[in-house]
Amino acid sequence: MPDHFQLLKTDTVTAARRGRLRTLHGVIETPIFMPVGTQGTVKSLTPAHLREIGAQVILGNTYHLNLRPSSELIAELGGLHKFMGWDGPILTDSGGFQVFSLAKLRDIREDGVAFSSHLDGAKLFLGPKEVMAIQRNLGSDIAMVIDECPPWPCERDACAQAVARSYRWAKQCRELAVESGFLGAGHHVFAIVQGSTFDDLRREAAESLAALDFPGYAVGGVSVGEPEPEMLKQVAATTPFMPADKPRYAMGLGTPPQLLKMIALGVDMFDCVLPSRVARNGLVFTPDGPINLKNEKHRNDPGPIVEGLDNYTCRNFSRAYLRHLIAAGEMLAATLCTIHNLHFYLDLMAQARAHLEAGDFATWHRAWVERYETGAAARVA
Amino acid sequence: MPDHFQLLKTDTVTAARRGRLRTLHGVIETPIFMPVGTQGTVKSLTPAHLREIGAQVILGNTYHLNLRPSSELIAELGGLHKFMGWDGPILTDSGGFQVFSLAKLRDIREDGVAFSSHLDGAKLFLGPKEVMAIQRNLGSDIAMVIDECPPWPCERDACAQAVARSYRWAKQCRELAVESGFLGAGHHVFAIVQGSTFDDLRREAAESLAALDFPGYAVGGVSVGEPEPEMLKQVAATTPFMPADKPRYAMGLGTPPQLLKMIALGVDMFDCVLPSRVARNGLVFTPDGPINLKNEKHRNDPGPIVEGLDNYTCRNFSRAYLRHLIAAGEMLAATLCTIHNLHFYLDLMAQARAHLEAGDFATWHRAWVERYETGAAARVA
Repeated sequence: MPDHFQLLKTDTVTAARRGRLRTLHGVIETPIFMPVGTQGTVKSLTPAHLREIGAQVILGNTYHLNLRPSSELIAELGGLHKFMGWDGPILTDSGGFQVFSLAKLRDIREDGVAFSSHLDGAKLFLGPKEVMAIQRNLGSDIAMVIDECPPWPCERDACAQAVARSYRWAKQCRELAVESGFLGAGHHVFAIVQGSTFDDLRREAAESLAALDFPGYAVGGVSVGEPEPEMLKQVAATTPFMPADKPRYAMGLGTPPQLLKMIALGVDMFDCVLPSRVARNGLVFTPDGPINLKNEKHRNDPGPIVEGLDNYTCRNFSRAYLRHLIAAGEMLAATLCTIHNLHFYLDLMAQARAHLEAGDFATWHRAWVERYETGAAARVA
Repeated sequence: MPDHFQLLKTDTVTAARRGRLRTLHGVIETPIFMPVGTQGTVKSLTPAHLREIGAQVILGNTYHLNLRPSSELIAELGGLHKFMGWDGPILTDSGGFQVFSLAKLRDIREDGVAFSSHLDGAKLFLGPKEVMAIQRNLGSDIAMVIDECPPWPCERDACAQAVARSYRWAKQCRELAVESGFLGAGHHVFAIVQGSTFDDLRREAAESLAALDFPGYAVGGVSVGEPEPEMLKQVAATTPFMPADKPRYAMGLGTPPQLLKMIALGVDMFDCVLPSRVARNGLVFTPDGPINLKNEKHRNDPGPIVEGLDNYTCRNFSRAYLRHLIAAGEMLAATLCTIHNLHFYLDLMAQARAHLEAGDFATWHRAWVERYETGAAARVA
């Protein structure tokens, strides 16, 4: 797919970019946040809810879907889009991250990783061949290469080995995607830049992968336990060496201010379980920081989570009602809070795009982060 | 509200009726099934889902809502409709049934029932004054009187006492509804006919309550453990003595064939937790009886639960996908199965209304029940 990514505008103050990514299932306007649908569903939401909140692309997960119900079954049923009733773009994680974070008894070999399923202990194996076959079965619009994700902190030697191995695996994934016709048919494959906290390794990884001409590039190995400044430092050490004419994706991140800070560093795409996971626990986002709806002070609060925010939850329900649903253990609490939190993220991205177009992204994003962090700090104090 | 109920047509073969009930929040076409929203939510559905599946009226529960979050709080927030974001009609159960089925350490007195909350053991009291005040707070379109619900089986003397007490309480509830202006403002209050398995007590109860001129009448004390033939016999022993020009409501019932059989006995309104409760366990309804989506045979079934049924679940998702969601423990399974089951019930009522209008209800309902029961029996065998 030639010219699949258009760089519409680059900010003159920050490294932020306004872009447009074409996929087989539609166009993605960047910067964008991608709701996470690990097991073939964005937890507690229907695809109609996802459309309503403005989701442009969602995530599926190779590791989870291959364990259950299996990528062969999904292929037999017409692919992941049809299976889950979502006809927009889908990006699938390669499963590498889950193998390194969830699975047990890993054995890293040159052709991939042997591991035990976290569900039933079954012996499994994922390497370039396997993850590309699975993502072909799923019919992914954007497939990710398999990589070795080093822990934080890690030794330089171990990290250099992981970077080298990730490069070889990425190269094999790309070759497989060419041979199988996956790339030729218009699916994308994104490479993943590792390197932990070693700036020179990150640069080396980014530049060597750039030479392979992938349709997109991701920053991997972040949000693995390191403090926020370290995380942002790693992103900042990576993006300058990623191709400017390809979309850039920061994997598994982050809070609303972190997203804006990373947009300023030149990142275009994000995914994170945070907004949906905390929603199921009654934590919801506002421009003045997150609030916990379980708090007694919301007991008789007739106002919405965020006044004037145009989503189903804020248009129709009070904080008092949401608190009641949570207290009564009602599932609808999770649905309504997830709708709000994901819409809050998607709306934030829409605002970022608008301010990039208007040319005032730098001042706007600083003010937004300041208000959010001030409110959050005041609430904790 | 004069002429609040129009009897549009009475079947010439069965005692089935096609009617129209006016309430402060809209018109209800009968026969109708009412989804149960015990705690201010029909479990796992948004009000938008309820609209989509054609819900005309839903239930709220005095006992539960008064325990949590309290009817005073709901009143302070503008009433139950506003609280839960549902602007259609709401019928509220008086709480009597829950006091007799859920609460502990009951003490029945002439002015009501003292009991302990099933949540925290708090000492509480519900009598005519309390239930009418609570239902006024909730802003119920159709309030139910408090009654004494005898267990099954029960002695004749105890049942006669319960019927007598239920009559006195119903009378007080009606007087309170007149004095407070609740009836005058257009809210309805329905009386409840008890009498257990004693036909003469049921007749006596129905006739004495009929003389009090309530806006509607319910058959109570059914579905308390008795076998189906006994349950239908009790309904059949009651409806002939209920006023023909008022809506008739069978409380807490039943399966799809039971609903059709009770429509044939002259019942207009139903509520039951069955379709939503079993949906959360993967049991879904079809015209050939219920099926369990957990069953291995649905693993790769690309078809919907019911081919051609026009609800969100059947239009968009395969049995294989629903089975996957259940196996993966995903909340969306409950939402999609609940949408289907409640729509199945509402669609069955719409079919019944259409066949009543067309004049072929008797033959249609026998054929429907036959197909359903044959399919269900074949599946068990």
